[in-house]
Amino acid sequence: MPRIVESVYNLIISPTRRIDRIIEAAKRSGRDLYLLSTGQPSIPPPREFREYVAELMKLESMAPYKYTPTEGYYSLREAIAEDLERLGGPKVDPEKELTVTAGGAEGLFTALMATVRRGDEVIIFDPTYFDYEPMVKFLGAKPVYWRATVETGFQPSLDELSDLVSEKTRAIVIVSPDNPTGRIIDEEIARAVVDIAVERDIWILYDEPYKTIIYEGSHVWVSKLDWEHTISMASFSKDPGIPGWRLGYVYGPSDVIHAINLIRTYTSYNPPTIAQLAIEHYLRNRLREKHLPMVLSEYRSRRDAMYRAIEELLPEARTLKPPAGMFMFVEFSPYLRKLRMSGEEFVEALGLEKNVMLIPGSFFGPASRNYIRFSFVTETPGRIRRAIELIREFIDEKA
Amino acid sequence: MPRIVESVYNLIISPTRRIDRIIEAAKRSGRDLYLLSTGQPSIPPPREFREYVAELMKLESMAPYKYTPTEGYYSLREAIAEDLERLGGPKVDPEKELTVTAGGAEGLFTALMATVRRGDEVIIFDPTYFDYEPMVKFLGAKPVYWRATVETGFQPSLDELSDLVSEKTRAIVIVSPDNPTGRIIDEEIARAVVDIAVERDIWILYDEPYKTIIYEGSHVWVSKLDWEHTISMASFSKDPGIPGWRLGYVYGPSDVIHAINLIRTYTSYNPPTIAQLAIEHYLRNRLREKHLPMVLSEYRSRRDAMYRAIEELLPEARTLKPPAGMFMFVEFSPYLRKLRMSGEEFVEALGLEKNVMLIPGSFFGPASRNYIRFSFVTETPGRIRRAIELIREFIDEKA
Repeated sequence: MPRIVESVYNLIISPTRRIDRIIEAAKRSGRDLYLLSTGQPSIPPPREFREYVAELMKLESMAPYKYTPTEGYYSLREAIAEDLERLGGPKVDPEKELTVTAGGAEGLFTALMATVRRGDEVIIFDPTYFDYEPMVKFLGAKPVYWRATVETGFQPSLDELSDLVSEKTRAIVIVSPDNPTGRIIDEEIARAVVDIAVERDIWILYDEPYKTIIYEGSHVWVSKLDWEHTISMASFSKDPGIPGWRLGYVYGPSDVIHAINLIRTYTSYNPPTIAQLAIEHYLRNRLREKHLPMVLSEYRSRRDAMYRAIEELLPEARTLKPPAGMFMFVEFSPYLRKLRMSGEEFVEALGLEKNVMLIPGSFFGPASRNYIRFSFVTETPGRIRRAIELIREFIDEKA
Repeated sequence: MPRIVESVYNLIISPTRRIDRIIEAAKRSGRDLYLLSTGQPSIPPPREFREYVAELMKLESMAPYKYTPTEGYYSLREAIAEDLERLGGPKVDPEKELTVTAGGAEGLFTALMATVRRGDEVIIFDPTYFDYEPMVKFLGAKPVYWRATVETGFQPSLDELSDLVSEKTRAIVIVSPDNPTGRIIDEEIARAVVDIAVERDIWILYDEPYKTIIYEGSHVWVSKLDWEHTISMASFSKDPGIPGWRLGYVYGPSDVIHAINLIRTYTSYNPPTIAQLAIEHYLRNRLREKHLPMVLSEYRSRRDAMYRAIEELLPEARTLKPPAGMFMFVEFSPYLRKLRMSGEEFVEALGLEKNVMLIPGSFFGPASRNYIRFSFVTETPGRIRRAIELIREFIDEKA
């Protein structure tokens, strides 16, 4: 076989996929699993959304199937721009300042490809969403970690940032609301990052897929603090909950949106037509206003059940009660020490012996190896409580 | 605004998009256009396909919406592997030798990213599908053109190939059945290319999106001539006709499929779930057997109408009566000389004055500038005849 390009091996099959394979094997053996591992929404999109798609399937025309512009239909971009304004976001020109992507991943990857090249440095949080480190390395750039811990509610230190920024820094990646921690970035910190980005003329890549999944507090719009240095990346995976349909969007200065569209012509050509039509229907008919409060109410009760169970049954663990998103990031070192296990060993043994699936913190950054990520969106409050009881049992049996 | 990576500007918004913008403007002014420009299927997928999607929309579950493996559901890969065998193709291991992509473009781009790096040379046909040259340049590699002309039915010369291959050659790209010419590669030529690829240990990237859109003759399976050097790339855009839904696949040696999946984790994460479910239904229920003969019969009558009209009304033009695909690539130099126009000028003036949309040959390669691409799949035979009459009128008026 001829040669394969080496830099490809900086990329990894998403770490949760490794967990998914354990899950698949467990399912085949008929075990009942407690899925505290996945960030997949558990509530399908609203009925009006689905009925609209079914209606489109009756058309004897190519309309629901044909190629669209790479940046998505104009009418959808307009609906998204209106939605951003309603949500309190910036005023965006749907013609030039916004592009619809084939999911969040394409938005992140093409935004990085458009801005980062070999030899650059990119500041990412530790912990952060696990796609960033491999993408940065694949592009020949160096990830520089900005630490965030439970002690400060996962807000990073501005003093530390000054030490991390160098002549080579090309971009700073911020996820808010965050995966894996659920924290919303402090507006004061966001302002300080913006000041540095403006002073140094570097990009802020602002990843906001959970911006409407908020239980307390409100979203921080970095693009409103400074438009010229901010590329914002969003997704419809979590709201209304169509992760597999692959639809997201990116907005920012028109020149960088144009560069992203040049790349996107080759990565996806166009975002899936049927997803575009359905999401335009969702936005224009304000379906979120009925649908999302129900979803948030359900997720909030699951979060509260998980937080209470952890407080009660795992009192030595420490976490932020997350104001947003789908996850708790739990500092677990007292228990890992007792068990004499790494986070990865703990997660694997717990999955095999107690059927409770979690994600080890090491997937999110080298300094986060004593944390464990718990997802609270997939299981019911009762099953969440039972899963935490099983974790307690596991610790008592093994320690 | 901070810097944008320069190499991005090797990429171009697909040239047909430039034509599409002229079309959009014309439509807004209410003109009736003859669309001989687009490679978009004109017949929607079969009713059973659409009814199946509508049924899925009734489910109160996340099943039709959730993330899938990056390589697509195993059951779909298995259905595609069975389909390949039924079509006369190779026996493929659906576990490791095949991946489902978010459309043909993602397959091409990720196959190139996995195999081609800065400083390499990639042999592409002139003419060829217009995505290849920009992708090769974006990767820092050099496109080397292998000429094919109407005189030899768009079969290239093997003598010339020996001169083009160098120490730097990393891959040879073949599209068959071809866009823009409709030719099926001669099996003898394919065998000779395979011999060179084996001897030099270089990749053959074999692009076969039109492999079931054949009117006379049969598909040449390069992967059966040599498995280890061939990456085959296919699409469901043309059959069953869901271009905007973005579903295709790539098959080849397991190591390169793994490398492609590493990249695809970041370009699309997964191929659209709803398209996967619908295509599995299409393949497993053998819907193609009823649907495709109807489509081919319709396209064949359109091709024949176009070929007859060109023979009769544009006798100095020369083309191959295409045995496959959606296009005729017409050598137009006698008329361009009379009109004292370049192909691009001709196409633009014709579109504006006679409402007939074509694509200039220059989009497909530097040596093909005196050709014009005609698509025969979008308009009815009567309207195709009328469009060719309008072209004749235009020439008579201007020459």
